Amino acid sequence: MRAYDIIFNKRNGKKLSQQEISFIVNGYNNGEIADYQMSAFLMAVYFQSLDDEETFSLTKSMAESGESLDLSFLDGPTADKHSTGGVGDGTSLLIAPILAACGVYVPMMSGRALGHTGGTLDKLESIPGFNVNLDKEEFIKVLKENKFAMIGQTKEVAPVDKKMYALRDVTATVESIPLICSSIMSKKIAEGAANILLDVKTGKAAFIQKYEESKLLAEKMVQVGKMFGRNMTAVITDMNEPLGNAAGNSLEIIQTIEVLKNKLRNDFSELSIELAAYTLLQTKISNTLEKARSLAEEQISSGKALEKFIKMIELQNGDTKVIDDYSVFGKAENIYEVKAIKNGYLKYVDTRNIGVTSCLLGAGRLKTEDKIDPVSGIIFNKKTGDKINKGDILFELHYNKADIDGILKILKKSYDIIEHKPDVQKRVLETI
Amino acid sequence: MRAYDIIFNKRNGKKLSQQEISFIVNGYNNGEIADYQMSAFLMAVYFQSLDDEETFSLTKSMAESGESLDLSFLDGPTADKHSTGGVGDGTSLLIAPILAACGVYVPMMSGRALGHTGGTLDKLESIPGFNVNLDKEEFIKVLKENKFAMIGQTKEVAPVDKKMYALRDVTATVESIPLICSSIMSKKIAEGAANILLDVKTGKAAFIQKYEESKLLAEKMVQVGKMFGRNMTAVITDMNEPLGNAAGNSLEIIQTIEVLKNKLRNDFSELSIELAAYTLLQTKISNTLEKARSLAEEQISSGKALEKFIKMIELQNGDTKVIDDYSVFGKAENIYEVKAIKNGYLKYVDTRNIGVTSCLLGAGRLKTEDKIDPVSGIIFNKKTGDKINKGDILFELHYNKADIDGILKILKKSYDIIEHKPDVQKRVLETI
Repeated sequence: MRAYDIIFNKRNGKKLSQQEISFIVNGYNNGEIADYQMSAFLMAVYFQSLDDEETFSLTKSMAESGESLDLSFLDGPTADKHSTGGVGDGTSLLIAPILAACGVYVPMMSGRALGHTGGTLDKLESIPGFNVNLDKEEFIKVLKENKFAMIGQTKEVAPVDKKMYALRDVTATVESIPLICSSIMSKKIAEGAANILLDVKTGKAAFIQKYEESKLLAEKMVQVGKMFGRNMTAVITDMNEPLGNAAGNSLEIIQTIEVLKNKLRNDFSELSIELAAYTLLQTKISNTLEKARSLAEEQISSGKALEKFIKMIELQNGDTKVIDDYSVFGKAENIYEVKAIKNGYLKYVDTRNIGVTSCLLGAGRLKTEDKIDPVSGIIFNKKTGDKINKGDILFELHYNKADIDGILKILKKSYDIIEHKPDVQKRVLETI
Repeated sequence: MRAYDIIFNKRNGKKLSQQEISFIVNGYNNGEIADYQMSAFLMAVYFQSLDDEETFSLTKSMAESGESLDLSFLDGPTADKHSTGGVGDGTSLLIAPILAACGVYVPMMSGRALGHTGGTLDKLESIPGFNVNLDKEEFIKVLKENKFAMIGQTKEVAPVDKKMYALRDVTATVESIPLICSSIMSKKIAEGAANILLDVKTGKAAFIQKYEESKLLAEKMVQVGKMFGRNMTAVITDMNEPLGNAAGNSLEIIQTIEVLKNKLRNDFSELSIELAAYTLLQTKISNTLEKARSLAEEQISSGKALEKFIKMIELQNGDTKVIDDYSVFGKAENIYEVKAIKNGYLKYVDTRNIGVTSCLLGAGRLKTEDKIDPVSGIIFNKKTGDKINKGDILFELHYNKADIDGILKILKKSYDIIEHKPDVQKRVLETI
């Protein structure tokens, strides 16, 4: 077998066998196949795509490039969740303790902030002392004790994905449905949960902006996951306005705690409950979506999810004092209030730029090497469709050091105050 | 400017500017742009193609990656010829002395044998002592004295082409019309001749097998050459049977000398005269094709072309005794005669395999590092359409060391003896 022939055949639209795909992935992983052949292969895949079987083979080879977690020794259902990322999208922080409180094991490996989207790990690390770098044994120990643990992807999980993604990132081969699918699914498969819930964002601030493409990706991931024998559900959710009332690291953790304390309900808590409910259906803990929603709700109102959350912080060496005293997070030196200059209704028009704004305030990374400021970010006091009076505070910009004038210019173009109340988009657009 | 954006834009079908193309070619040439970005770019070009302006820009950047020959100091027209290669295709050996005898300067830089096709340099090197590695000064000196010189491409001519071709060769990006065009034309442009004749082969044993694609390539090269202000002519010629009566290095030189001595006429001499005639038209030495053909013919019948040929051998340190004594070339130890097993008419059915056979006898290279045996090869006693009697010698296989049984098996499948006289294909199919 030669890498050349595999590239040649894919270029000509021929279907590749599992042997061929495994040959190129393994060869690339162990350095026998060069970057320049892999990048030509990836570009050929960009143009000729991969069918479900090929995508399954690719996902399998990538998953098998590292260690796979065997969670079969656990005495209950296991569930994992992945979101393609958005602005203010911290639902994992709420879903995981809710599910754990319902008896589901949630072994969650997450990523970091990049571009205009946030990252669960950075958010958790805003809790003083919190350790996202547990090794496998510690991870399993926390999981067994508290039913959920939240860590970063270990180096052992699908290592070739990291190498392939870095190459795609510099060769304009990121935007390919089968490649995105295998990148996400190879990690989820290796992480071992039997039930996988995918939250595929669509809209202006999503990784994939066109609805039809988001749907294709969702379908492909569900299909591939099923080929591995996993229970799969995908929801396509709208990302045309920020989720919840906060974007930023400690700001989003505080929002989460407020919900868990039963003091706040908003579109962030609503979507989290909805997504948790889907997993309760998958795991057959509930047999209707209505019952699943109620059960998820109960974990919040009863304080059980909060208990789980506190225990997780404790087990991962975080300072649990943050729960009752938000000043433990520290505070941004400056808070700039953006006020409405007229009456009307708020409408977000460019949420991607809202994400960029949050990044520029210090909450995210425009490049992987950028440093995060845990306390900076944006509070969204108003959401699309809210009635606005001139002088109302629309946003609070929290920051320590930032080019506030430049940021305000970008922010200004990302929302509008209009005369008539705009339609408010449902969050969950479709379930697959 | 970033390589990423150039790849991204081409991938999305956007037209690239001359600045963008020059950025990626220069960056690759000086090592600032990595192989993996260039190969992704080349694959994107494979799928999205390049229009004439982009192909011109690419050709220009490639030509300018090295030295350009300025031939304007010469006191007569300058002409160059390129063939996309075939079996028995040694027309340059005949065209160059004919044109030189007509007063045209022919500065010819040629390539080596690869795959099933032969190479002018290897053929010339079968002449004992012949030096194809003249430096620029020596090349110009021979050119001035004898009006033609035949050497290998110097390292200074379009060096990035070599690097790009090597990358295309291992990433399945060879078969792209604009990339083939710019690879050929960048060298022809840098070599400086004002008149360029292209012989684009089509058919089973050609680099490009489909007629329509051969035509597209021919048109593209003519268009690009004109954008550089060169006189361009392209002919599309059939390569469904071997050209002439010999494939092999000394065997083809002997055939050339026989023609120049006015002792042999065949389809090889006919095509050579035809191609020379096109250049005589280009250079305005003749004003009709008929007159041009007669003028070319006269150079053979008068012995003037032979004189030029002998002088070239002398000036390039070859042993001119080969002209009168073919034993100076040496001789293959074995000559295997392939005889007809029945009566009928000969028809070549797979000339690519004839080329492979010649290669396996020792005349060519299947890999670049293979060594050439100058005296081995095939004599074609019969051509398509010739009447055959059982027992006639169809081929002579000349070789020193070869797996003759394996070779005969391949050869057997590459011709047929049929009942009715087959149509004989014209050589020149179209002129552009």
